[in-house]
Amino acid sequence: MSSKDTQLLSAQVCEACRPDAPMVSELEQVELLAQLSDWTISLDKNAVQQLAKEYKFANFAEALTFSNHVGALAEEVGHHPAILTEWGKVNVRWWSHEIGGLHKSDFIMAAKTDLIIM
Amino acid sequence: MSSKDTQLLSAQVCEACRPDAPMVSELEQVELLAQLSDWTISLDKNAVQQLAKEYKFANFAEALTFSNHVGALAEEVGHHPAILTEWGKVNVRWWSHEIGGLHKSDFIMAAKTDLIIM
Repeated sequence: MSSKDTQLLSAQVCEACRPDAPMVSELEQVELLAQLSDWTISLDKNAVQQLAKEYKFANFAEALTFSNHVGALAEEVGHHPAILTEWGKVNVRWWSHEIGGLHKSDFIMAAKTDLIIM
Repeated sequence: MSSKDTQLLSAQVCEACRPDAPMVSELEQVELLAQLSDWTISLDKNAVQQLAKEYKFANFAEALTFSNHVGALAEEVGHHPAILTEWGKVNVRWWSHEIGGLHKSDFIMAAKTDLIIM
């Protein structure tokens, strides 16, 4: 990963997910993940793949401010993650509800999340 | 449960949790839970008891607004929950990190959360 890769990925357009949008293949997942820093792919309780990252902060207020920035980004493109806000940390998970897995848009949104400036 | 019970509970003071604060007994838990609506006690991955509730909303923006209200309440008393914000829902979990379980304050904070007006 390099921050340049993340910037390039973040500059791509997040298509509003359609039910018929293709999931990314395992090979594409590896390539896209390599353009991101510290994101991992995990399964939720329904075995749906999600792209997750935990961000650390000095206190609760900063964590909540970051969550609001992520929320604003989500509203801007009409694609919404799960945002877990706790004291000093925020866990963000992106996935495409409509296809029950990961779309390229989720990787683009992850890159955009990394570039949030507080 | 009655909303009057919730109001009475919410009016109590949430003491900032100290490491030597007592956990509530099982009997106290039953009594306190009876004063709340739709809150459940669950275990996190470290087997720590947490008081949890899911609130439903019409969209993502309303969910995030509610999360901010919960955050403001938390900052006011210096006691912080985990707030999971998703499209149309917010899951709030209260517990006392310092004692690794539930303190009466968590039940008071749950009652205060129920009385948030959007």
